[in-house]
Amino acid sequence: MNQQASKLIIITENLLLKKIAKIIDEAGATGYTVVAAGGKGSRNVRSSGNPSVGDSFTNIKIEVLTANRDMAVKISDQVAAKFFDDYSGITYICNAEVLHAHTF
Amino acid sequence: MNQQASKLIIITENLLLKKIAKIIDEAGATGYTVVAAGGKGSRNVRSSGNPSVGDSFTNIKIEVLTANRDMAVKISDQVAAKFFDDYSGITYICNAEVLHAHTF
Amino acid sequence: MNQQASKLIIITENLLLKKIAKIIDEAGATGYTVVAAGGKGSRNVRSSGNPSVGDSFTNIKIEVLTANRDMAVKISDQVAAKFFDDYSGITYICNAEVLHAHTF
Repeated sequence: MNQQASKLIIITENLLLKKIAKIIDEAGATGYTVVAAGGKGSRNVRSSGNPSVGDSFTNIKIEVLTANRDMAVKISDQVAAKFFDDYSGITYICNAEVLHAHTF
Repeated sequence: MNQQASKLIIITENLLLKKIAKIIDEAGATGYTVVAAGGKGSRNVRSSGNPSVGDSFTNIKIEVLTANRDMAVKISDQVAAKFFDDYSGITYICNAEVLHAHTF
Repeated sequence: MNQQASKLIIITENLLLKKIAKIIDEAGATGYTVVAAGGKGSRNVRSSGNPSVGDSFTNIKIEVLTANRDMAVKISDQVAAKFFDDYSGITYICNAEVLHAHTF
């Protein structure tokens, strides 16, 4: 089923997961993967007021494979518009080639 | 040692890790990385019958750097043929350039 | 703000995190993400003398988005020179396109 796809990565604060998952669903993506993450961003503090460096995984990294770049950009635009004024976050895209999946 | 490589990503259920590790080893890959993951796939339920959304990391994301695309495809084909009828899973490839490693 | 970037990935042993974070900071990168990881490398044992396979997440995967390839290579060179004689590790680069971020 080899198929070029876009992989959207969203790194942001844990507490936003449910709201972002809703945006992903509504955009028509078939799924996403979530990983617990720590790190340091350009602000160096999270909205909690606490730094998050390494040991504490208070962030999440969400990965979404989308059939085309437009869907990835659309999700990213909505997430950034809704949350990135108030919360730390970054979104970026990589190219991917899907080999096998149930449905994609 | 800069060297173009393929990065194979396998996202599937935790309980398959050992069997997939064996396939990776036998294909001749020098190593792999495993990360605990949650998420939602196109089936929306895992083989356990329970949904896996965010908070519970019952999935794994396995990453394998391979010297060429053929090895990545071979591993993916075997994993999909053996497990993806019965378990949730997706495999995809990204391009990578290895900078430093013990052996690769 | 769509902007081509390099994504540097460093997979190595957990105990090196603080030292590597310092290298990343000093290179001028605006941030990084850390994820707990397990896996198997070409040496098959970690510096602790214990194998690290799957269940035990004694490694880390650090991801750094850099504005250009040179910064990624510079960080990688320093990390490898300082640590990869004594510790397990691999570094590689992927291409990424940053969509949204606070500052980048």
